[in-house]
Amino acid sequence: MKLSLPRQRILGNPVSRCHQLVSRLLGAGLALTASALTCVGPAQSAELRQMVERYRVTHEGQILAQLDGLVRIRSVAADPVGLHAAARMLVDALRRRGFEAQALTEGGAPPLVTGQWRAAGAVRTVVFYAHYDGQPVNPSQWRSDPFTPVLRSGPSANARLIDWRTAAPPFDPEGRLFGRAAADDKASIIAFLAAFDALRAAHVPPAINIKVVWEGEEEEGSPHLEQELRQHAALLSADLWLIGDGPIHQSGAPMLYFGARGVIGLDLTVYGANRALHDGHYGNWAPNPAALAATLIASMRAPDGRILIPGFDAGVQPLTAAEQQAIRALPSVDRALQQTFGIGQPESEQGLALSLMRPALNVRGLRAGEVGPAAANAIPTEAHISLDFRLVPDQTIAGTGAAVERFLQAQGWTVVREPPDAATRIAYPRLIRVQWGAGYPALRTDLTSPAAQAVVRAARAAASRPVALMPMMGASVPIYLIDEILHARVVGLPIVNYDDNQHAANENLRLQNLWDGIELYAQMMATLHW
Amino acid sequence: MKLSLPRQRILGNPVSRCHQLVSRLLGAGLALTASALTCVGPAQSAELRQMVERYRVTHEGQILAQLDGLVRIRSVAADPVGLHAAARMLVDALRRRGFEAQALTEGGAPPLVTGQWRAAGAVRTVVFYAHYDGQPVNPSQWRSDPFTPVLRSGPSANARLIDWRTAAPPFDPEGRLFGRAAADDKASIIAFLAAFDALRAAHVPPAINIKVVWEGEEEEGSPHLEQELRQHAALLSADLWLIGDGPIHQSGAPMLYFGARGVIGLDLTVYGANRALHDGHYGNWAPNPAALAATLIASMRAPDGRILIPGFDAGVQPLTAAEQQAIRALPSVDRALQQTFGIGQPESEQGLALSLMRPALNVRGLRAGEVGPAAANAIPTEAHISLDFRLVPDQTIAGTGAAVERFLQAQGWTVVREPPDAATRIAYPRLIRVQWGAGYPALRTDLTSPAAQAVVRAARAAASRPVALMPMMGASVPIYLIDEILHARVVGLPIVNYDDNQHAANENLRLQNLWDGIELYAQMMATLHW
Repeated sequence: MKLSLPRQRILGNPVSRCHQLVSRLLGAGLALTASALTCVGPAQSAELRQMVERYRVTHEGQILAQLDGLVRIRSVAADPVGLHAAARMLVDALRRRGFEAQALTEGGAPPLVTGQWRAAGAVRTVVFYAHYDGQPVNPSQWRSDPFTPVLRSGPSANARLIDWRTAAPPFDPEGRLFGRAAADDKASIIAFLAAFDALRAAHVPPAINIKVVWEGEEEEGSPHLEQELRQHAALLSADLWLIGDGPIHQSGAPMLYFGARGVIGLDLTVYGANRALHDGHYGNWAPNPAALAATLIASMRAPDGRILIPGFDAGVQPLTAAEQQAIRALPSVDRALQQTFGIGQPESEQGLALSLMRPALNVRGLRAGEVGPAAANAIPTEAHISLDFRLVPDQTIAGTGAAVERFLQAQGWTVVREPPDAATRIAYPRLIRVQWGAGYPALRTDLTSPAAQAVVRAARAAASRPVALMPMMGASVPIYLIDEILHARVVGLPIVNYDDNQHAANENLRLQNLWDGIELYAQMMATLHW
Repeated sequence: MKLSLPRQRILGNPVSRCHQLVSRLLGAGLALTASALTCVGPAQSAELRQMVERYRVTHEGQILAQLDGLVRIRSVAADPVGLHAAARMLVDALRRRGFEAQALTEGGAPPLVTGQWRAAGAVRTVVFYAHYDGQPVNPSQWRSDPFTPVLRSGPSANARLIDWRTAAPPFDPEGRLFGRAAADDKASIIAFLAAFDALRAAHVPPAINIKVVWEGEEEEGSPHLEQELRQHAALLSADLWLIGDGPIHQSGAPMLYFGARGVIGLDLTVYGANRALHDGHYGNWAPNPAALAATLIASMRAPDGRILIPGFDAGVQPLTAAEQQAIRALPSVDRALQQTFGIGQPESEQGLALSLMRPALNVRGLRAGEVGPAAANAIPTEAHISLDFRLVPDQTIAGTGAAVERFLQAQGWTVVREPPDAATRIAYPRLIRVQWGAGYPALRTDLTSPAAQAVVRAARAAASRPVALMPMMGASVPIYLIDEILHARVVGLPIVNYDDNQHAANENLRLQNLWDGIELYAQMMATLHW
């Protein structure tokens, strides 16, 4: 089917570039069935969607087979052989499609799979990021083997099994493929490959130079990513990185996110006496580290989550008008989530989305003495507090650490880095051991920037309902590195269902999310322009 | 050696009663060597001490052999056969000495050993209480078998072994006999028996009717004691109960205590979402039960231990002038204990002894999520708090419970008794599960009462240094029952070293404490009068 080429200028896309592309494609003798879709308006975007959908419907079995094959590879941190096997499979998959591809290995890190596909005449380069490693598994908690994917008619334990290898597509779109990393994050890789295949089948060339970065240690906290970005800056450079990771909006709406909060972990140990003392004989006199820890937490964090540490908020940038507008436009999921999670009343009355735009102090764990039947009438010797702080732009790791330690000192604590010796215990009234974990700052990409707006346009073109625009994810990924090292814009492009049991047992991918993801990826490749 | 009988009236002891006694003894043809000591003054008390000391020095081997034999019996809750064997041995020991003795058993409880020795002409009856059961053992933590006593030259791990069966007495008084229950509380039983034997050897008759109550489930919390006191009220009735349990003052001074704080345990469970939620995606919105638990604790208890619950102090009786004076006269051990326990600064500036006269809120344990390397970036689903409250006269269990629950409700908590179901979780903003443990009130015997003063006089007569008078132990024992059911006065008569590893591995008794204890018991039996 030939498309007429409209002459009008489309949002942000100069007609001149559109002309160039069409001329080039014609000159190359390529079919124009859909090849000029990068220049076209809503009607044509819809045609691209239909084309991709037709491709998908007739290839559901093959696409699922690719995902099945990838999930069967045990690419988890505990299995380096599996990580390397997955990387080899992915390099092959890229090369078969005409990419220049390789697996980079730095200092014993799992391979970083990179690929490159140059679009003739394209002026923008976009990295499609995903990760092929999965979270660790505890198979005893799974209903089926984590590395032997099974398709079920739904998420529940009694959903019926579907033999997708013999069933005729289209499969039930509410079906769920269960397997470790099926959703997080191998679905993004398969969506990318299927979208590329769909465009090629329709002879629609990408509108951008495509780069691929598929990481193998994201679930370990990306310990080598910074080094890899610095070392291969030229290879990985781009105008834009699209982060194919994370779930879409809880409402089921397609979603883009334009940043992520930063994070830093903090382990605190509060010391009491050097031995457990009978709380009848010494309570009210010997310091009780459990009570001290509780008081410390209460002094740092208000019941609504506000952080009470002076100076902690230094550098916090308010949301822009566009970001505030995006938040207001989000579908409300709060009541539904309260029901699902059994929450009588949220901590803050701001609503979930706005709450995640603030810095957070999360108490991850508390441990002192014993509870329940094991409790003894004793004053614990130590109390352990595990915290993490979620940071927002432009809070810094150094500033966060300094504010927290200043606060501790102002509260009368003496900070130590190692367990105190006898002399230290006697010398100071209140001792606290401070152990900072690894951390990194937040990033928020300007929603009004041309790159961000281009991604929004493409996502809207791919979607059958309004796209949720999250100025920033509540969770953390180290995408600040991409901004800092490569000076590229970063936008998050999640596709999977939010109820995917990510990081838990019985991880699963809803099929319709994969299908929608393929259309989203295709739209990005074929129409991104700014 | 004959003693001249002074004619003057001695503290609280009418000369007339003294005359009667002396006449009666002379009439019975008994030697008067020391038989009238109940009527005599300081010089004669010193003579009784010397007599008992002489007896002890020449019988150290036999006394240790008796303790050794008793410790070898595994009278712990896990070993009912051992409990019954110990009870039989003790009934025999009493009968051999002329006591009417029996082992009472109620509803499967370990036997309660009782004994009675009537002193001709005595008008006062005194119960000597102790317990023959010991704490559970974990032999792997012991340096020697808990039920094979060994004597070492001191408390430390490298103290040399002493073969007391072949060594010639007197033994090194700093020697320690290691074994379960050697100190807590079999030493009190052996001190009683040896004191009785020493008086008999010196032909000194007791000045009081003696009753014995030796319990077999004190370490289990005396679950049948109330029932036993009620059922055998006549058999167990007395003017005074002397509680032979607990350690002496940390300064090494002999000690009497005149009461004990009450106690009640409380387990609280604070609920968050019904599943662990990613703290990046939901932190600041989903309630964090660990933070809520911390805030709750901080709202109940000030850093100096003061309890902030309105109405909690209802009924608290201030210390009397005599009690305050007793506290002021205690040797100060605070600095030494700070050194020993590695405490830079106590919770309260009142000093240890006064701190224990107040009610206490002890945080025994805290548990939520995970800490250290196991910590996940998740909001815990529950937080568990284990508390105990130490009570003082005249706080009641009912009043304590009511004040705490009123406070929780005033803070916005909805109290539940069982884990909440889904509908309850959604219906209430803040849910807390409240589980009260067993509890009982405090008791403080009037220091100025004639019985208390009589015990003080006898203890001073036995001691070579000032006697510490503790108006109330910080720890709890259910002696209120003796007051409530039998209307008897209660005074604590501890003898063992405070560093006896009571309730822990390597429990040990310092020999000099046993020797001093024998003199204390002898003085009580021979001279108590009011």
